Amino acid sequence: MILTVTLNAALDVTYRVPRLEPHTTHRVREVVERPGGKGLNVARVLAALGHDTTVTGLVGGRTGEALRALLRQAAPGVADALVTVAGDTRRTVAVVDGTSGDTTMFNEPGPAISSEEWTAFLERYHELLADARAVALCGSLPPGLPVGSYAELVRAARSVGVPVLLDTSGEALRRGIAARPDMVKPNSQELTQLTGLTEPLRAAREARRRGARAVVASGGAEGMLAVTERGIWRAAPPRRLSGNPTGAGDSAVAGLLSATVEGLTWPDRLARAVALSAATVTAAAAGEFDRGRYEALLPQVSVTEQ
Amino acid sequence: MILTVTLNAALDVTYRVPRLEPHTTHRVREVVERPGGKGLNVARVLAALGHDTTVTGLVGGRTGEALRALLRQAAPGVADALVTVAGDTRRTVAVVDGTSGDTTMFNEPGPAISSEEWTAFLERYHELLADARAVALCGSLPPGLPVGSYAELVRAARSVGVPVLLDTSGEALRRGIAARPDMVKPNSQELTQLTGLTEPLRAAREARRRGARAVVASGGAEGMLAVTERGIWRAAPPRRLSGNPTGAGDSAVAGLLSATVEGLTWPDRLARAVALSAATVTAAAAGEFDRGRYEALLPQVSVTEQ
Repeated sequence: MILTVTLNAALDVTYRVPRLEPHTTHRVREVVERPGGKGLNVARVLAALGHDTTVTGLVGGRTGEALRALLRQAAPGVADALVTVAGDTRRTVAVVDGTSGDTTMFNEPGPAISSEEWTAFLERYHELLADARAVALCGSLPPGLPVGSYAELVRAARSVGVPVLLDTSGEALRRGIAARPDMVKPNSQELTQLTGLTEPLRAAREARRRGARAVVASGGAEGMLAVTERGIWRAAPPRRLSGNPTGAGDSAVAGLLSATVEGLTWPDRLARAVALSAATVTAAAAGEFDRGRYEALLPQVSVTEQ
Repeated sequence: MILTVTLNAALDVTYRVPRLEPHTTHRVREVVERPGGKGLNVARVLAALGHDTTVTGLVGGRTGEALRALLRQAAPGVADALVTVAGDTRRTVAVVDGTSGDTTMFNEPGPAISSEEWTAFLERYHELLADARAVALCGSLPPGLPVGSYAELVRAARSVGVPVLLDTSGEALRRGIAARPDMVKPNSQELTQLTGLTEPLRAAREARRRGARAVVASGGAEGMLAVTERGIWRAAPPRRLSGNPTGAGDSAVAGLLSATVEGLTWPDRLARAVALSAATVTAAAAGEFDRGRYEALLPQVSVTEQ
């Protein structure tokens, strides 16, 4: 199976309001809840692609229970190996302005994790690695976890020969990359923050130099740039696609990881990642992907070696 | 005991953000949850005043469980006779802007109530009325309940001789008032909406004509106006008080109801309501009241007969 790790899972709540007016009271017309956190999104796409998929990470409290129940409904094919903690799983609230279509986000920090809880998680993670063909480590760290926590998870995967992809940001990415993950997938902003460089190719090379075996930089609507030990490629969708970018990066991670497990070449991995990402941006619901569009886009993605 | 009814209870969530900027993502620094809904607030104040107090109403789902747990912690003296429904109790989210201090509210609509659930609630309500010395009916109606639901509860209380105070708005107030409650406590806006009149005394008289035995209109910092069968009074705090008005109306309801049960005269009821309301506005935490300030303000409230 493919394993995804979400240390700071979230119950994603969307409120639709006719119009957002600061410092007034809004009657929310519609409330939608879905299981959130990057690793859970990646797992849903992996399962939809037909891969045996397991999620682990940390969840707790009544929001954690609600998240697990929604995950069972939304992705019955995903195995739940989440570890229960004492604190409450965080909520994210997205307020969608019905007039402009813009979204205003409020992200709770997440539960404080004790060292005993982290130890219990590590034990579970080691057990799960025994059956994993690849692992994705995704998203932010909850309060209380040392900033080097992802580095520890990267080393554990490498020590048992399981390919590991890291998708996080800031100091957690900086520390994680030094532990030599097989892949990282920063967006332009994360790459610049990590390296101090704004030109994508130079920045991606610098990220490789810091420890990642391959760097796949996502450039939004422009596609992806991969700097690997086998070469450098650029992959782009056939045309600029507009829509909701929520979850597009997670779909790209699912594309890269599934294609790696299937033994595909770098050009084919990138084509899948770009097509899945584009089919997520143009899907009707945020964070879902449109299978018909994915299959139509896949042969149209251009991949060029640099 | 004194009974309060909250048909659309809420889990009140407060987010503190450094500054609210529409259409951006905010990291919430602090999340505070408290049991919400007007009738629950009234009950907390009644219990703090030493009255044997029971809450009923409709709660459900994980938010309902969270609300009940918080109520036990925050108000251990309040007896929980809430009726469980299938839907989830709503949340309200208050976003406090740390720069301006202003609050932006998002109120979820609440669970849809089935006719079977309403019947089960009515049964419980009738049982509770047998031991009640007074009852307060508070707040909005959840989706699915007929707009005449408060009128039904008013009639049930009157038929067994239990004094009943109604504190709601819009069509639910209009219909409820026609069922002849002993007291209504509209604010200026609710009174104008009900009667179409903007002058408080004329509007309060019109509200009495429509069925309420007594109308106590709250005018915010200016105090209260009572139009009753015994006379007309105005009550005002000794000075204009600034602070957070959250819960001030609920404290006023608790003041009126407790003083009625204790057999106090109208001037004494109004003095208590105004002092409690003022001690809520000036309290450190929203919706709490400052006991020391309440006791200091009580003899300073001016009550004048019209």
